Amino acid sequence: MSHLPGPMVDLVAALGRLPGIGPRSAERLAIHLVQTDSRQVCDLAQTLVAASERVRSCERCGGFTEHQPCRVCADPARDGSLLCLVEKPVDILLFEKAGSYRGLYHVLGGKLSPLQGIEPEDLSIPALEKRLGIEPIREVILALPTDVEGDATSSYLARRLAGRSVRISRLAHGLPVGSALEYADELTLSRALEGRRAVPGTESDPAQHHD
Amino acid sequence: MSHLPGPMVDLVAALGRLPGIGPRSAERLAIHLVQTDSRQVCDLAQTLVAASERVRSCERCGGFTEHQPCRVCADPARDGSLLCLVEKPVDILLFEKAGSYRGLYHVLGGKLSPLQGIEPEDLSIPALEKRLGIEPIREVILALPTDVEGDATSSYLARRLAGRSVRISRLAHGLPVGSALEYADELTLSRALEGRRAVPGTESDPAQHHD
Repeated sequence: MSHLPGPMVDLVAALGRLPGIGPRSAERLAIHLVQTDSRQVCDLAQTLVAASERVRSCERCGGFTEHQPCRVCADPARDGSLLCLVEKPVDILLFEKAGSYRGLYHVLGGKLSPLQGIEPEDLSIPALEKRLGIEPIREVILALPTDVEGDATSSYLARRLAGRSVRISRLAHGLPVGSALEYADELTLSRALEGRRAVPGTESDPAQHHD
Repeated sequence: MSHLPGPMVDLVAALGRLPGIGPRSAERLAIHLVQTDSRQVCDLAQTLVAASERVRSCERCGGFTEHQPCRVCADPARDGSLLCLVEKPVDILLFEKAGSYRGLYHVLGGKLSPLQGIEPEDLSIPALEKRLGIEPIREVILALPTDVEGDATSSYLARRLAGRSVRISRLAHGLPVGSALEYADELTLSRALEGRRAVPGTESDPAQHHD
């Protein structure tokens, strides 16, 4: 890359550090940017800095926000008795895009990982317990990832919150909507079988027969 | 995207205007950037502005450069008798990466296109003729794209420069017809350079002079 002027080499390197941008994309972007009107590039730079400086974590739920509290926490139409517990701020966006959830959120900020030294105190578990003491929350929905650490964290939280008069639930495991059986892995299929539900109007939930 | 804070919506929109970055990539990048340390984002913004403000066109050849003249034009080891005529500044980078060319360059700044109103005076043809009058150039290598407009521009230039005591050559047909320079691999580009041929009616084949 020695045939590029110095400032372009720096730009290619900086762009190449962004996720999902390889060396060729970084070079293509840099070439585009130096051929773009300087004012437009300044605008892009200002937009970058503005987003970086003005977007903060909501002090209540931990989601992305410009103002305190965030739009979801401040919305009186949301159901304050439901609290969805997610790992990262970006997970909130996924639920909001899905559009069917009308409760509140709480961002845990990670998963328990003894190997990496991530203990309960490193996550926002104390803040969660504080919220449970103050807010009229009646159900906590565990929506952590279904990997080993996510499952361990969910189990830990279920035990830790067991004494409280709050319902603890988990997202259902099963087949993705719109996919064929043959694309489901064995574990997902087993979970889908375990969590099967009665077809409305036929009989009661067969899963309850296990009790 | 109404579930994103305003500054992030702006950032997603700005990133999505860059070439090769779709709406999903733009959102992923924006989410990454607001979670990145503000100082790093400021550094990226400054690198952007620096590249945009400090990278200019070489006043002699039209290539990208920080200083006047560019590194290629200023290099006394380059063969000043050879001039490679390219469409865009980025094409120079492709030859420099291939590494086999040791002459100088001239960026035309486009292709003739009567339909889009691009006439010879809109391109750097007068500057090329001025260089031919001043510099000890003995061969002009036409390295324009092999599409219809590129071919028409090459033919026009071959006719326009025919009266001068300068050899006019073209890159060898080894390039896939109908594709732009940037899709050629480095070896193909080197071979095309080696096998360049005289434009019929101007002078004899320069490649045969090597025999």
